[in-house]
Amino acid sequence: MRIALDAMGGDYAPEAIVKGAVLAAQEIDKSATIVLIGKEDVVNGLLKEYGYTGSNITVVNASQVIEMGEHPTKALTQKPDSSIAVGFGMMKMQKADAFCSAGNTGAMLVGAMFSVKAIEGILRPPIANFVPKLSGGYGIILDVGANADCKPEVLEQFGELGSIYAKYVLDIQNPKVGLMNLGEEEGKGTTVIQATYQRLKANANINFIGNIEGRDLFNDKADVIVCDGYTGNIILKMAESIYDILHEKGMKDPFFEKFNYEAEGGSPILGVNGNVVIGHGVSSPVAICNMVLQAQKMISSKVWERFKKNYSA
Amino acid sequence: MRIALDAMGGDYAPEAIVKGAVLAAQEIDKSATIVLIGKEDVVNGLLKEYGYTGSNITVVNASQVIEMGEHPTKALTQKPDSSIAVGFGMMKMQKADAFCSAGNTGAMLVGAMFSVKAIEGILRPPIANFVPKLSGGYGIILDVGANADCKPEVLEQFGELGSIYAKYVLDIQNPKVGLMNLGEEEGKGTTVIQATYQRLKANANINFIGNIEGRDLFNDKADVIVCDGYTGNIILKMAESIYDILHEKGMKDPFFEKFNYEAEGGSPILGVNGNVVIGHGVSSPVAICNMVLQAQKMISSKVWERFKKNYSA
Repeated sequence: MRIALDAMGGDYAPEAIVKGAVLAAQEIDKSATIVLIGKEDVVNGLLKEYGYTGSNITVVNASQVIEMGEHPTKALTQKPDSSIAVGFGMMKMQKADAFCSAGNTGAMLVGAMFSVKAIEGILRPPIANFVPKLSGGYGIILDVGANADCKPEVLEQFGELGSIYAKYVLDIQNPKVGLMNLGEEEGKGTTVIQATYQRLKANANINFIGNIEGRDLFNDKADVIVCDGYTGNIILKMAESIYDILHEKGMKDPFFEKFNYEAEGGSPILGVNGNVVIGHGVSSPVAICNMVLQAQKMISSKVWERFKKNYSA
Repeated sequence: MRIALDAMGGDYAPEAIVKGAVLAAQEIDKSATIVLIGKEDVVNGLLKEYGYTGSNITVVNASQVIEMGEHPTKALTQKPDSSIAVGFGMMKMQKADAFCSAGNTGAMLVGAMFSVKAIEGILRPPIANFVPKLSGGYGIILDVGANADCKPEVLEQFGELGSIYAKYVLDIQNPKVGLMNLGEEEGKGTTVIQATYQRLKANANINFIGNIEGRDLFNDKADVIVCDGYTGNIILKMAESIYDILHEKGMKDPFFEKFNYEAEGGSPILGVNGNVVIGHGVSSPVAICNMVLQAQKMISSKVWERFKKNYSA
């Protein structure tokens, strides 16, 4: 198992990334390898500085860096030897089983869509995020930002993708799929949401429990929360801001600690040919470590192969 | 000034409503009157029971009650002597300057739209809600549920209505109008949101500051937050659930206390011919009292007359 990690992506790269890799190296399976992609001399220097002497981190050179503010498509074309381009190149040649980066989100999305590409049959790969549940564990919400406008058939697929992910990566048996809406009753919501309701209801592959509301995010009504990327992004950022406000006020609680992006370390792109995880720009070493562990779980659960199988019929 | 109050609407009506009216009677202007609408004998009995001896509460009889679960349009047609129908009747005949109810929200919306009606020129009256700000005071978010799908010209009007409301009712000079979106940059978001951005940017009557994100709800970027009713409803209910979770965990803080619906007591419908405020179904006496005080402020600020003037040109 080879987990590629962009050493140059993120506000605190490369230091925080290399530190995170060293943390993760102590926790991942002995058979797994973390492949740090970046300026070889810099990365090796940092590994030495942090006293790393193990054998499950390797380094692959990438002479260029895509900065956080760069235009995704242009940057990927103009910087073929950037850590993000090299990472997707490794994915394409099956030299890596997962690729993680806390760098330019747009470039990660463009790379995923145009390099490894969407699985055949998947209309619009979403970005998923984790939702802490009051009763413990996590649910999943998707999309949180890849697709602002979504047609009903796209939202229906989010329900299927989320269901498979929840089952195999989060180990939730028969995951409950809920449609984010402004009321519980059938017939509520926008025309797109109303049409989506009918499609999800008719879909025999998922356990659709109907509409859920903004107040149901953290309870047990649904394990998989379906919404468009516009709505999901607003929910995600609102939750992050609640965490920040509580943190600033010194109000601590184990449940709200899970609102911290560090807890899971990154958001997977679902429905592309391979395991791709996008980290937060401000990623700390702990966040990077958790992102690598998340990638490991995605690999061992064979989740993207399951997506592929589901749509190959 | 006459503030009509539905004595029969809400999960704890009529007791909580009459108690709330008694509380409000001690705080409103001496010249103001609270008109309790409901079963006369019941309401008078409760006023006596609560020891009310003042002169600024009067009672208007309404022999019927629209229950919380009833179909709004049917109920209003079939129950012409219900407290909600009587309340809107008083508004229409200018026998009341405001109408407040914690009863059937749908019936309140239908009553507002078909009895007092939208102000000429207003496309789709929104429901507004208050957003507590970390720096103190409140902003306003609209729509929070009246219109799930909104065209760009409708969202543009929300910016205008919110701006007038923030200026005259919340006393915010030159209120900043922000468009809820998944990113700050111009060009982000759904096609409707992108088109709305251009309209708000070109609108000389408002102080448009651009896109805001889910993390900006509680900071000072915008005083008026524009979104469709689907998105606003999810945000509102998510905020309410955060309050409930904190409350249950015994985590108290003055800022988060403002997430409690009781603090402002109700959500005004903006852009109809008159001041109409919808309370939460679970309204307590304190919530009812604050809803009446909110109505008083709307009346004294002449906000709906200002809306009307704005669109009469």
